[in-house]
Amino acid sequence: MVDCEFCKIVAGDAPSSVVYQNDRTLAMMTLRPMIRGHILVIPKKHAASLSEMEYKTGGELFEAGMKIAEALRASEIESEGINFWLADGEAAGQEVFHVHLHVLPRSETDEVRLEGPRLDLDRSEMDSDAEIIKEQLNENKHEF
Amino acid sequence: MVDCEFCKIVAGDAPSSVVYQNDRTLAMMTLRPMIRGHILVIPKKHAASLSEMEYKTGGELFEAGMKIAEALRASEIESEGINFWLADGEAAGQEVFHVHLHVLPRSETDEVRLEGPRLDLDRSEMDSDAEIIKEQLNENKHEF
Repeated sequence: MVDCEFCKIVAGDAPSSVVYQNDRTLAMMTLRPMIRGHILVIPKKHAASLSEMEYKTGGELFEAGMKIAEALRASEIESEGINFWLADGEAAGQEVFHVHLHVLPRSETDEVRLEGPRLDLDRSEMDSDAEIIKEQLNENKHEF
Repeated sequence: MVDCEFCKIVAGDAPSSVVYQNDRTLAMMTLRPMIRGHILVIPKKHAASLSEMEYKTGGELFEAGMKIAEALRASEIESEGINFWLADGEAAGQEVFHVHLHVLPRSETDEVRLEGPRLDLDRSEMDSDAEIIKEQLNENKHEF
């Protein structure tokens, strides 16, 4: 994708601080860090959203994230914990439309927070929602 | 793990609203939803943290998350976007010590937010951190 910021990095046409790459994935320091050591893992093949990416590639992003999490914890970069974060769609906060998994090293004293309400649903509401989702999984003939 | 809340669910010894399960993974409505349709994907085999889980299993959690994201988007549950969130370690906000990937359906008007600072690092700092992490990845002999 000519106009994609991340495709330019994959092609070597834009600067980046690459942590790792193989045939299908690339991990780099993000340009918009919330914390030191904030890394993005991306597929090399352009996919604007999860729905455009092969499942297998998604699995590879997560596996790469796990390995990077270990490396961060073993490094001198402060990392008492790790968050993974992925935003799919504008409503979810996606800003660059090339799939990216955030790997965030965390410390007890940082200011990174997932904020939101806590709902109080009863079991019958949860069961009913589970049925709605199950039905879609069946209709889409997903094979896990 | 006898005392693990999620292992009890996997064993069928605690109630849950299951969305899907196969040999290695289980997806269910969370007991502590931030939003309607909030789902957790867990490995069936106990792993307190990412470091205790096989990479392959992590990949399967993500693939399951992608399929559930699709099902949510296709369902009547409001879902203009999707977030994945995973907390590894207390400093990252982990509360139940059995690995779980959050799948959060999002809407433009909800109150879920990833809050945090935005740092302004220059390229030399990012390059230096990338080198530190690369070195750990090599030492750990990771094969992506």
